[in-house]
Amino acid sequence: MSIEDAKKAVGKAAADLIQNDMIVGLGTGSTANYFIEALSVRARNNLFLKAVVPSSQRSHILAKRLGLPVQELNDVPYVDITVDGADEIDPLKRMIKGGGGAHVREKILAANSREMIVIVDESKLVPAVGVGKLPVEILPYGSPATRSNLEKLGYLGKWRIQEDGSFFITENDNLIYDVVFSAPPPYPQQDHEQIRLVPGVIDTGFFFNIAGRVIVGYNNGRIEIH
Amino acid sequence: MSIEDAKKAVGKAAADLIQNDMIVGLGTGSTANYFIEALSVRARNNLFLKAVVPSSQRSHILAKRLGLPVQELNDVPYVDITVDGADEIDPLKRMIKGGGGAHVREKILAANSREMIVIVDESKLVPAVGVGKLPVEILPYGSPATRSNLEKLGYLGKWRIQEDGSFFITENDNLIYDVVFSAPPPYPQQDHEQIRLVPGVIDTGFFFNIAGRVIVGYNNGRIEIH
Repeated sequence: MSIEDAKKAVGKAAADLIQNDMIVGLGTGSTANYFIEALSVRARNNLFLKAVVPSSQRSHILAKRLGLPVQELNDVPYVDITVDGADEIDPLKRMIKGGGGAHVREKILAANSREMIVIVDESKLVPAVGVGKLPVEILPYGSPATRSNLEKLGYLGKWRIQEDGSFFITENDNLIYDVVFSAPPPYPQQDHEQIRLVPGVIDTGFFFNIAGRVIVGYNNGRIEIH
Repeated sequence: MSIEDAKKAVGKAAADLIQNDMIVGLGTGSTANYFIEALSVRARNNLFLKAVVPSSQRSHILAKRLGLPVQELNDVPYVDITVDGADEIDPLKRMIKGGGGAHVREKILAANSREMIVIVDESKLVPAVGVGKLPVEILPYGSPATRSNLEKLGYLGKWRIQEDGSFFITENDNLIYDVVFSAPPPYPQQDHEQIRLVPGVIDTGFFFNIAGRVIVGYNNGRIEIH
């Protein structure tokens, strides 16, 4: 088994938890894509879905192509379950997301779903969040000043740049500033609030008190549902 | 003297405080417009400005038309003074802005200026902020759910609608939800933080610890600088 196999396995395991008549939120990213594919296989057989609700243009396109009944979040009355990956998750189910730059919409979708099921391979498990980068979405207007304000608060990092050298632009038309911690911060919720309250900051990649069931796939083929 | 005369008078008084070689931030709205006009009169005479930095497309266009040396916030190294109006200001210099829907950029500009000079006519003076509406800028994605989350926290209000019946859209391509308080809230900073931390909220119209000098114009012609 490889990491890809582990991702595929948790995607399928999550799809198996979806029930008839549900409205299902779709995360964004490589693991979420495996879920969307497995869900479409079930939907082509015996599963009836009221709607699937994407968190990004990428998920929208994939779901549509696979024949799933796509609707926009603003057009559905509720969302039963959202299934999404994570870049880091710790034993307190605190997460960091946004490696793909979609965390702002993913958080809105997850925070407004009855349950968020998190699917990860074992490489995403950390003792405490903040091992890697923390993506922060920032309005372009005044972005050098906003970055400077974050640096003054001790949040060093860098703008996310694409392979062609241009700035990465989110689907909300904003920039991503990737904060790097020297060590996992002891009180990440405080960091989240301090960063979030800086004028020009849209949201951070921290997710607290949102994850419901967590499905972990190991490289040895084992799957655990917490 | 009318309210218009009072607005004009504080605009001129603020322009008289601007010194040679300054980089000047321009607010948005009817009072800020009087400042921009008075500033352009001084700039056509003896005042040399390094740059003026608009907080909106509207101020940009006006400043450009009046021949002021417009530059974008991202292209200047600092801003000496930003001059802007307010919808409400109280004796603690707490403010509410955003009646024109430009408060997110106005706050970024003011928060990153060495001083913000506030210019208001006496109708904007309140014993405590929260007499009128509190504008909140909200991402369109999931906006009905975001509104519902604000309502659950007790923040009732309504979407800002234009005369033609369509939603008001900000220059950041977002919506405005105008919160209405039943009475001025005792701890507005707490309300600001609670609202601001809801996923999907960009920023509120509350301004704290930003105002420097405040110039008040009275209908009897008097002007006070605090």
